[in-house]
Amino acid sequence: MTTLTVSQIHQHIGEEVELKGWCYNFRSSGKIFFLQFRDGTGRMQAVYMKTDLPEEQWAILESLRLESSVIIRGLVKEDARAPLGFELEGKSITAIQIAEEGYPIGKKEHGPDFLLDNRHLWLRSESQWAVQRVRDRIITSTYEYFHENGFIKFDTPILTPTSCEGTTDLFEMDYFADEEAKEGETSGSKAYLAQSGQLYLEAGIMSLGRAFDFGPVFRAEKSKTRRHLTEFWMMDAEAAFVEHEGNMAIQEALICRIVADVLKHCAQELKVLERDTAPLEKVQAPFVHMTHAEAVAKLRGMGSDIGDMDDLGADDETLLTQQYDKPIFLEKYPAVVKAFYMKRDPEDPTRVLNNDLLAPEGYGEIIGGSQREDDYETLMERIREHNLDPAPFDWYLDLRRYGSVPHSGFGYGLERIVAWTCGLHHVRETIPFPRMINRITP
Amino acid sequence: MTTLTVSQIHQHIGEEVELKGWCYNFRSSGKIFFLQFRDGTGRMQAVYMKTDLPEEQWAILESLRLESSVIIRGLVKEDARAPLGFELEGKSITAIQIAEEGYPIGKKEHGPDFLLDNRHLWLRSESQWAVQRVRDRIITSTYEYFHENGFIKFDTPILTPTSCEGTTDLFEMDYFADEEAKEGETSGSKAYLAQSGQLYLEAGIMSLGRAFDFGPVFRAEKSKTRRHLTEFWMMDAEAAFVEHEGNMAIQEALICRIVADVLKHCAQELKVLERDTAPLEKVQAPFVHMTHAEAVAKLRGMGSDIGDMDDLGADDETLLTQQYDKPIFLEKYPAVVKAFYMKRDPEDPTRVLNNDLLAPEGYGEIIGGSQREDDYETLMERIREHNLDPAPFDWYLDLRRYGSVPHSGFGYGLERIVAWTCGLHHVRETIPFPRMINRITP
Repeated sequence: MTTLTVSQIHQHIGEEVELKGWCYNFRSSGKIFFLQFRDGTGRMQAVYMKTDLPEEQWAILESLRLESSVIIRGLVKEDARAPLGFELEGKSITAIQIAEEGYPIGKKEHGPDFLLDNRHLWLRSESQWAVQRVRDRIITSTYEYFHENGFIKFDTPILTPTSCEGTTDLFEMDYFADEEAKEGETSGSKAYLAQSGQLYLEAGIMSLGRAFDFGPVFRAEKSKTRRHLTEFWMMDAEAAFVEHEGNMAIQEALICRIVADVLKHCAQELKVLERDTAPLEKVQAPFVHMTHAEAVAKLRGMGSDIGDMDDLGADDETLLTQQYDKPIFLEKYPAVVKAFYMKRDPEDPTRVLNNDLLAPEGYGEIIGGSQREDDYETLMERIREHNLDPAPFDWYLDLRRYGSVPHSGFGYGLERIVAWTCGLHHVRETIPFPRMINRITP
Repeated sequence: MTTLTVSQIHQHIGEEVELKGWCYNFRSSGKIFFLQFRDGTGRMQAVYMKTDLPEEQWAILESLRLESSVIIRGLVKEDARAPLGFELEGKSITAIQIAEEGYPIGKKEHGPDFLLDNRHLWLRSESQWAVQRVRDRIITSTYEYFHENGFIKFDTPILTPTSCEGTTDLFEMDYFADEEAKEGETSGSKAYLAQSGQLYLEAGIMSLGRAFDFGPVFRAEKSKTRRHLTEFWMMDAEAAFVEHEGNMAIQEALICRIVADVLKHCAQELKVLERDTAPLEKVQAPFVHMTHAEAVAKLRGMGSDIGDMDDLGADDETLLTQQYDKPIFLEKYPAVVKAFYMKRDPEDPTRVLNNDLLAPEGYGEIIGGSQREDDYETLMERIREHNLDPAPFDWYLDLRRYGSVPHSGFGYGLERIVAWTCGLHHVRETIPFPRMINRITP
């Protein structure tokens, strides 16, 4: 008998098949046993009749506990009432391991701390399974989009000798601090975990033209909000000869692609998550465009006390996104609230050629991007204005000394895009093992 | 005029086109100017005749320095002598930025320290460009292979409270050590950078069936060899209901796929690297299989003094791989030299159901894998035998308490596979910004 997966079952209606997986629930009338089965690819029900089974087989069914691992065999039958449209007429069962009593996660409501303490088991719950599959789809679509558009994956380092923007919120560690330096080598020193690969990616595109990185980044932020983790996955993309407008066009195409792919490939997962897909269907180009100045005026009209040169707070973002059913490009922020490497707007040098991208339904910022300053003297001036030591940026300045070109890039926070597409309130559910200020386990 | 890339040029022979990129070399007879041009997608020559150009255009050409950024326009012509089979008959040129004098990397031989100090510029060299493109191809093929075979990407954490196998060679740091613990929260503590995501991945497959992770890992090893970095990219894959033999079949199919794709898609890059492709063409299933005991006997026959229960050293691996032109599965190592989580061989409980995979041509170990111990009591016994504290493994033991299943997995070191396929001696060239015991810059 062929061993199949639940995802393959629809091609085998009327056949006898074998499946290997876990029993996530069951009930028995004493004569009929309903086994809720999952195997990683999906879920379905197997129905066993006592009269059809040898006694020892029925005894196995009666000995099952939640999450026991089993091999089930039976006939695939269509059943309009089943979520996937079919169920298994059970013919036999093998128990691989009868789970211990007292599987911690039940049907009742658990608090977030309890669930996170049991994250290694909570991941098996249908909603968490669905979230991880949507996450995988978003990752896949991102790789596909970039490769179809000439971007090369370029893995920037995590261990760095300094940071883009000062050393607050950085995780610090010793890097072979007890080693003696040999001639021409770096002496033992401190290392910091990267918050972004952007500056390194800028070196990459001067070789490769277009590049992206996608890996974990770290922020030692003490904030406890529903949108922050201390370790999260960031995708940074950078392209030579792309300016501000072109940069936004790439972001728009990427987000449209991701949302369309999630709708197409993860319909079952979104159903499990009870995600209303209507707002996602509306994520189509062109997105809304608004300058920072326009956003401030609008927000003030809605009662916000935001100042002309202030960054938007989370509440401002939420307020704004509730006015539109498409993502919003917020452009041209005040230079004073943004990083030194952003290129100034030639039409208004108090502002930069940047954009944030806000997701609708109150989700807010999912992308930050900008055109980069490509003139050596101007960049040097910015470094001084931001009171940064130019020495650690010497290699970065080389990119402007030798063949500087107009270029732009952006980064997305994977967990925020997963939270938005899945309709989750808190990003902690979007990553397998979340790390927060008070959580580094399991 | 359309702006194109070098990679698109072959479809535009006989047309006038515009290209944006860098001048990586040039020479002039005073009447003819040969401009060697690159744009991230490839390299080609543009030839300008003084008699065809306005004076100020010729002056631009004469002002060029190495790595200046330029926009060139001209007619695409076939030329059998050119590497890509065509060149540009130059019509006009715009300088974006004339590079400063003294571009550090020239034609002469530089030492490795000099090149690594200038890694941000060295990346532009043709060989380094080629290596990064092969690396991207290997990453892409890996994602494709796993997605076609039902594996889900599952991002395991970097910040971990403990390690699989003791705390030697771990990078350690404070994790909010000054924070006071609130009720039910973890107090400020130490964090360690992950050396492998395997244990977490085992939790993932109990939900998803099959999963892989692919991200940076860290080893604070003081060894300086051509095969070690302190930060490198590891791909871990894990599958439920897969046993030792099936595990090796997955590895074999993955490696065949990667090598075939590199040969198919990176012919130009391998040519740049002067990689002899004949040995790569021979990487076809079935690979060589050999038990550890057989390998020891063979090595002793070749003069090695390896003991019956010793792990293979790098020299042993090199010696062995030189005997075969296919990769070698080395199976069933002595349990005493391997990790606690590996399942024992039922036919010989002093050995484990593991495998290394050695790449040919002296490259040695690129994969390590094993079937995992799935019995709770046995695993607990192994933890004690290895003198490990069972407390941090309690969540891992839960995977054996609740629905344990036979499962296996393996991990590959990306940099070693890049080094092998590109024919490089040292892994330091395979990653954009290598980190070694005495190097954390740029």
